[in-house]
Amino acid sequence: MRAVYLEQGIVSVRDIMPQALPPGFARIRMLAAGICNTDLELLRGYYKFHGVPGHEFCGEVVEGPTEWLGRRVVGEINLSCGRCEFCAQSMGRHCVRRTVLGIVSHPGAFAETLTLPVENLRGVPNQVTTEQAVFTEPIAAACEILDQVVIEKREQVAILGDGKLGLLIAKVLHAHGAQVSIFGRHTTKLALAAQSGIATVLAEGDLPRACYRIVVDATGSASGLRQAVAMTKPRGVVVMKSTVNGETPIDFAPIIVNEITLVGSRCGRFEPALELLRTGQVTVDHMIDSRFKLEDAPQAFARAAAPGVLKVLLTR
Amino acid sequence: MRAVYLEQGIVSVRDIMPQALPPGFARIRMLAAGICNTDLELLRGYYKFHGVPGHEFCGEVVEGPTEWLGRRVVGEINLSCGRCEFCAQSMGRHCVRRTVLGIVSHPGAFAETLTLPVENLRGVPNQVTTEQAVFTEPIAAACEILDQVVIEKREQVAILGDGKLGLLIAKVLHAHGAQVSIFGRHTTKLALAAQSGIATVLAEGDLPRACYRIVVDATGSASGLRQAVAMTKPRGVVVMKSTVNGETPIDFAPIIVNEITLVGSRCGRFEPALELLRTGQVTVDHMIDSRFKLEDAPQAFARAAAPGVLKVLLTR
Repeated sequence: MRAVYLEQGIVSVRDIMPQALPPGFARIRMLAAGICNTDLELLRGYYKFHGVPGHEFCGEVVEGPTEWLGRRVVGEINLSCGRCEFCAQSMGRHCVRRTVLGIVSHPGAFAETLTLPVENLRGVPNQVTTEQAVFTEPIAAACEILDQVVIEKREQVAILGDGKLGLLIAKVLHAHGAQVSIFGRHTTKLALAAQSGIATVLAEGDLPRACYRIVVDATGSASGLRQAVAMTKPRGVVVMKSTVNGETPIDFAPIIVNEITLVGSRCGRFEPALELLRTGQVTVDHMIDSRFKLEDAPQAFARAAAPGVLKVLLTR
Repeated sequence: MRAVYLEQGIVSVRDIMPQALPPGFARIRMLAAGICNTDLELLRGYYKFHGVPGHEFCGEVVEGPTEWLGRRVVGEINLSCGRCEFCAQSMGRHCVRRTVLGIVSHPGAFAETLTLPVENLRGVPNQVTTEQAVFTEPIAAACEILDQVVIEKREQVAILGDGKLGLLIAKVLHAHGAQVSIFGRHTTKLALAAQSGIATVLAEGDLPRACYRIVVDATGSASGLRQAVAMTKPRGVVVMKSTVNGETPIDFAPIIVNEITLVGSRCGRFEPALELLRTGQVTVDHMIDSRFKLEDAPQAFARAAAPGVLKVLLTR
């Protein structure tokens, strides 16, 4: 089958053998998949990755348990062992032996088909289009914040970064009822947030200091994290959502003096994400920049890496 | 009056004018005071400090409201304005206009007398000696952890650093009922923890990885913070207790991937600290290294800065 392959900074499309299907797994025909910043980081060498990337997808089950055949699905990306200390505590996303779809030792979704354990699958509601369903995984990552930090309704929250993840976080926290302000450097992207009724701030010059109890850093930059700390009130919380490769120099003295809490935040549960899509509380159609055929993945990656570009989809 | 003075890396003892006593303040005759690592950092230029240091003390009220006269007291070190947003939320320790005894714009306790608002004073129980009472402030800083993080009884907690603060944190969390292991590099200091029934680990070679839900970094070093992160389980908590001057390079990727929370932690409430001293649940006498007269402060600072030295006291 045809599959996208990343190796030594090069995107290619190759013929590869479909994987065997172990008991408890399903084979899924990819219908649409999204290029995430993590994919771009993998291309740059994050995790020393080489292989088939892709972890945001919507597909159709073509092999597996009868009750799943023909269903449109999305899938949780962490494949857990079910036996370790963390699996025993319902923390399969932190399984010590986990593989991760398209990221760690499990071929990803940028291929004609992919495989996942049936327990990872979630049916896509009829109200949600296939392209919208591709956003389930990053929306779940945004929802994870609400599983980690208590955010009151009408509480002021600042989000730094107007990229794909920043916009989705803004939408999710806005839907939750928080008073969200998104800080970014791209008027066109901020305009998308404004369409959803979210306050936007073009981040130029001095930003407000020590005035939010909760700040989410989704900038993907070291300076963004420092900025987030500076904007946080004493005893406030900085949620760290960005994947930055390498070491970030941080002055911890103000974090300790102001007793700020930094919360690392990664993947989340799919259920609340699908519900936000189903009810239309989070809209994503306007975040799709362009669509490319799987065969044109090199062009799709180049487009996704261009400045200011939002979601690039791969389709069959 | 005679007072210790820090300026440009030099410790001297000078004659200074006693401060005026504003309404609501008390004047306290210093009976004993402790040199803290923060004082050594101030000497090295932290906060661009110059002035009278000292924030760990026990004294006797010599001027102020009648009901306090002659009483033996300790004092909360943050002087708050009582009017700002944080004071209104009972967060006076984070008052935006605060001064801090012996640290920020308020002369400290290494002097014949000091002044503090009466609301900052706490009476010392008769069962607590004057020298023991000097430890109230750092024990309160250790107790602050329990106000910030839920630690179950019998929960395993690692503490990195066998310095003064690390030992007190170990004692406080041990008294709380946690299963404490303290990691340090000094057999003599670890022996003091062992005397209190605390498990000790000489930190040589590879330390355990990802095996504690709660790790407290009290090393005062950048490498200690990195070590603390490495020892923390996914979704675990690193409590940052150390004051390190300058920027610390940290790889945030594992913190985000493992959803670790970093909690900055500073001063705490005095009441639980005094109670731990009163009941003997936290013992401190064996942590006193030596005593120096106020006049001999330069020698006292030199002693306090020597490797492996625990608490150095200044006395009248």
